[in-house]
Amino acid sequence: MSGSRRVQQLMEAFRCLPGVGPKSAQRMTYTLLQRDREGASRLADALLTAIAEVGECQQCRSLSETAICALCDSERRDRSVLCVVENPSDVQMIEEATDFQGLYFVLQGRLSPLDGIGPAELGLDRLEARFVAGEVQEVILAINPTVEGEATAHYVASMAREAQLSVSRIAHGVPLGGDLEFVDSGTLSHAFAGRMPLV
Amino acid sequence: MSGSRRVQQLMEAFRCLPGVGPKSAQRMTYTLLQRDREGASRLADALLTAIAEVGECQQCRSLSETAICALCDSERRDRSVLCVVENPSDVQMIEEATDFQGLYFVLQGRLSPLDGIGPAELGLDRLEARFVAGEVQEVILAINPTVEGEATAHYVASMAREAQLSVSRIAHGVPLGGDLEFVDSGTLSHAFAGRMPLV
Ligand SMILES: [Zn+2]
Ligand SMILES: [Zn+2]
Repeated sequence: MSGSRRVQQLMEAFRCLPGVGPKSAQRMTYTLLQRDREGASRLADALLTAIAEVGECQQCRSLSETAICALCDSERRDRSVLCVVENPSDVQMIEEATDFQGLYFVLQGRLSPLDGIGPAELGLDRLEARFVAGEVQEVILAINPTVEGEATAHYVASMAREAQLSVSRIAHGVPLGGDLEFVDSGTLSHAFAGRMPLV
Repeated sequence: MSGSRRVQQLMEAFRCLPGVGPKSAQRMTYTLLQRDREGASRLADALLTAIAEVGECQQCRSLSETAICALCDSERRDRSVLCVVENPSDVQMIEEATDFQGLYFVLQGRLSPLDGIGPAELGLDRLEARFVAGEVQEVILAINPTVEGEATAHYVASMAREAQLSVSRIAHGVPLGGDLEFVDSGTLSHAFAGRMPLV
């Protein structure tokens, strides 16, 4: 226990960050308060601004502070190819690791009936509307290969086939039960290039 | 790159935290924005409150939101023993690891003439005033055993001897060149109990 309640509260608040235990929280607190109050103040501002402004893109459901995100809005992207991912962070991973030039659709989760997550929660009605609208020709599934991810991928694949689109799925390299987030970018790039058509 | 400028700014802001690289910053950003905006908001508040309110205790120079910190203000502490440390985090470490019941003095650094850090910057005039005021009988040095720490410890020890106080220094267990911050609490407790009188 520090003698200061405010110091203690800041340590506890840091615990909301993934991977931050009591020891790291303590180090973060003392480092900022003793040596980098400017950084601390910038972090507080960035948090408040992001919370207030960042919502979801109406088109791809990724994180965005505008109604349509910069990617969906870009005229340089190939609108005939749509990559379906679980999370906004997957978009960033693929952008950094590959030369994919199409657009994305972010499910923000995977089908999980027991948790009350069905097609509506994943925005699949909106995705289907895009599939049948005529612009999209090819669908790439970059959904994580977990049990629920598999079910989700099959669901989206059959929607795409119904709309007579070609469907592929990224392949080798993403370990079973793994998360895209924890794959190095070389492996991800390889998996992306080696995607297989779904029959 | 994320499509969102606000998301990008938040990732960059997280980099001010010790031990947080680009990958962790990314994970923190997405986790908070997607799953824990309440935690993010609490963290922003805790940062702003701490920056605004936490200053230094007028007596021990530790972090405190009151003029005199809770430790210095406590009637349960033994005012005859004073433990001198470098950082506020060292106070917390010792409180958690040992049953020390005395008071502290926080140097907020160590003598480093080349960096312009002399006795005045470490508040040694204030420390000397406490040494001669008569309340303190024993001084425990828990200064890190680095080259500059050694010089600082010798300086403080001679001040204490001048005031005819007994001086000891925490001993075994703190690795040479190491920081108290990174020592496990068992080792620290041992070092504290095994402190040696300085002759
Ligand atoms: Zn979008
Ligand atoms: Zn104090």
